[in-house]
Amino acid sequence: MSFPQKYVSEALGTFAIIFCGTGAIVINQETHGAITHVGVATTFGLIVMAMIYALGGISGAHFNPAVTVAFAAARTFAWGQVLPYIGSQLAGATLASALLRYLFPGNALLGATLPAGPVGQSLVLELVLTFLLMLVILSVAQGSREQGLFAGLAIGAVVLLEAMFAGPICGASMNPARSFGPALVSGHLEHLWLYVVAPTAGALGAVLIWRFLRPAAFSAEA
Amino acid sequence: MSFPQKYVSEALGTFAIIFCGTGAIVINQETHGAITHVGVATTFGLIVMAMIYALGGISGAHFNPAVTVAFAAARTFAWGQVLPYIGSQLAGATLASALLRYLFPGNALLGATLPAGPVGQSLVLELVLTFLLMLVILSVAQGSREQGLFAGLAIGAVVLLEAMFAGPICGASMNPARSFGPALVSGHLEHLWLYVVAPTAGALGAVLIWRFLRPAAFSAEA
Amino acid sequence: MSFPQKYVSEALGTFAIIFCGTGAIVINQETHGAITHVGVATTFGLIVMAMIYALGGISGAHFNPAVTVAFAAARTFAWGQVLPYIGSQLAGATLASALLRYLFPGNALLGATLPAGPVGQSLVLELVLTFLLMLVILSVAQGSREQGLFAGLAIGAVVLLEAMFAGPICGASMNPARSFGPALVSGHLEHLWLYVVAPTAGALGAVLIWRFLRPAAFSAEA
Amino acid sequence: MSFPQKYVSEALGTFAIIFCGTGAIVINQETHGAITHVGVATTFGLIVMAMIYALGGISGAHFNPAVTVAFAAARTFAWGQVLPYIGSQLAGATLASALLRYLFPGNALLGATLPAGPVGQSLVLELVLTFLLMLVILSVAQGSREQGLFAGLAIGAVVLLEAMFAGPICGASMNPARSFGPALVSGHLEHLWLYVVAPTAGALGAVLIWRFLRPAAFSAEA
Repeated sequence: MSFPQKYVSEALGTFAIIFCGTGAIVINQETHGAITHVGVATTFGLIVMAMIYALGGISGAHFNPAVTVAFAAARTFAWGQVLPYIGSQLAGATLASALLRYLFPGNALLGATLPAGPVGQSLVLELVLTFLLMLVILSVAQGSREQGLFAGLAIGAVVLLEAMFAGPICGASMNPARSFGPALVSGHLEHLWLYVVAPTAGALGAVLIWRFLRPAAFSAEA
Repeated sequence: MSFPQKYVSEALGTFAIIFCGTGAIVINQETHGAITHVGVATTFGLIVMAMIYALGGISGAHFNPAVTVAFAAARTFAWGQVLPYIGSQLAGATLASALLRYLFPGNALLGATLPAGPVGQSLVLELVLTFLLMLVILSVAQGSREQGLFAGLAIGAVVLLEAMFAGPICGASMNPARSFGPALVSGHLEHLWLYVVAPTAGALGAVLIWRFLRPAAFSAEA
Repeated sequence: MSFPQKYVSEALGTFAIIFCGTGAIVINQETHGAITHVGVATTFGLIVMAMIYALGGISGAHFNPAVTVAFAAARTFAWGQVLPYIGSQLAGATLASALLRYLFPGNALLGATLPAGPVGQSLVLELVLTFLLMLVILSVAQGSREQGLFAGLAIGAVVLLEAMFAGPICGASMNPARSFGPALVSGHLEHLWLYVVAPTAGALGAVLIWRFLRPAAFSAEA
Repeated sequence: MSFPQKYVSEALGTFAIIFCGTGAIVINQETHGAITHVGVATTFGLIVMAMIYALGGISGAHFNPAVTVAFAAARTFAWGQVLPYIGSQLAGATLASALLRYLFPGNALLGATLPAGPVGQSLVLELVLTFLLMLVILSVAQGSREQGLFAGLAIGAVVLLEAMFAGPICGASMNPARSFGPALVSGHLEHLWLYVVAPTAGALGAVLIWRFLRPAAFSAEA
């Protein structure tokens, strides 16, 4: 697979995740709760699962700058591709938020992530959430071929459940691109740093512990 | 597999999807919300998944005129079979709505899709929804044999999540046959054009971008 | 696998389905709706799925007299085993309802299925629901080995979605044993005939249409 | 795989299950029901599924002292590893509850399991719930390699559905470690015995009946 295809795949998958996921938050607000919180979390989890099955074979289905950086740190992704991948993801996310702004011009936040309580609480939560997400990503990405078939199911399930239980406190971003698009287009950039720092730190922490749990996986690829 | 079987399979699968999916909308209205919107969206997604596993091996499990046209445009389905397939799908959908009318004679709309807001808003939404649905369909239909086993799961998940987040705005049809049955039997044909034009355009758009993302898939089959 | 194991497997699987599924209805009543209708339907679908994965290799995972009769009519199950299978299923279902009566002595109906509207409406609904369920069962049971791995997922999904959308009208039994246990133990046998006749007729109808759709499957096994 | 990795894997998986699962209960209380009971049960089921796919290849993914004891009784796990496994699980669970206490200092119970009605009612329920859970675990753990791929799906589904229908009565622990962490950190140890005795008895009961259903599986491994 050549690079233009990979970049379009990353932009397209991230677009789909942000358009459907934050679209669920926006439409839930516009319809006074018709979708419910359970529906929003389900939307997030299933669109991630579907995009992994659709585009995993083309670009690896990162759709998340923290995941891209963590794969590079794990030496399973070339550092030279990190910036173009992140650029593609941010472009897809921004396009999704711009289209939601066009469709729902009266919506103020466009699904931007904001801490509901103390900043430290959301920081720790986002770090733990992304740590667990990246742990699952690493294990299914480096497992057997058959295990890899369940990657979409396992990763989508983690996104669904984390959005379900932690969404009301920290927004359950786990993804700097997912927070970037709505923050930029809605103009609410004040807490964006949190959703860049915590997911990246959590994903890198998962690489560290995975290196301990599965040393063979790393030596084989190094 | 010979043609009568294929046509009956397409009619049967489309019947099941419309009977269960719009049946959920009708029964939700008749029981003053007993099923909830989450339940309606879940019904739509799971019946699509189940019919793909049940009938995919017979007719390819299109159940959707926009999907049939897009497969023909992608040169993976014979143009000569497009009209009989669409005819079978419309027959199945109409039968489903007629049975719902018989069972629930007092229900006015029978689950017909209508835009809740401006027509342009629903038009763009249906186009994007069907674009993403067709993108997933193309990728799992042209992937490896093992990937194909997850086709029902991935496609059902997209239908579930799109019905979940976009249903309250545009009805989340993504399927001219799904809109045709209830519109014809209930006599609400006024917005049917929208649910023919937008899903077809969205599905064809997915073929275009898939041709760019996976050129080998097309050259190999042409 | 020898016969005592098969009978215990059928009794055990049917026990689990009725205990969890009607247990959800009972506990939802006892807790004034804590589980919700969505939760009840989810419980029914997932316990069927889990029991198929757990016991499918031992007894074929019928857990349903209508399914057993239909498999015999399809010539994929010995007529001589029909009565012992049905006896095991009814024993398991009755044990489940008896245990629920012991745990929740104040509950009157124990999850018995009753038509919410006209009897004819529920009769037609149960017939169509079981027709679609048996269609999926036949297709995944006679498909390839890999397809068979998805049997639990596909069949559980049909039970979940049919309980979801049709439960408030007809109870969504699709299974004479599921209706028998609560009816016998709670003493509400007045509508039991409906839940014997309609599911059996629906399952046999599926065999007829499947014989048309997949003639090779029958000739190969006859 | 060597032992330190296995112990860390058991601690990590149990930490994730308790952190997300009881975290859902805690955040549901803190947000006055934003997550709903359906959301709490979904969180429990999906985190168990995800951890099985992530860590099953390292430690066998017990995450539950009752499961570890039952595997030892079934002679598929070394008795000498039972105590270190249980120790790892309790450490992971306690760490999860301690982190939730740090994040939500005002929450009194931290998701501790308490019987809502008579103690005997919850005792029987927990016993039956864990019996069914262990039955599914034994069947997918000793099935074919392909069946094993569906282990996470089937086991996660049982946890989800049992938490869904029985949670409001007995807490649906099915796992002494899941009850130990919150009980210890919140200081509510008064009913902990129930959630040690009943799940262990239920899991051992499943081994007995499985030995009858699948004698070959035991003789082959003994």
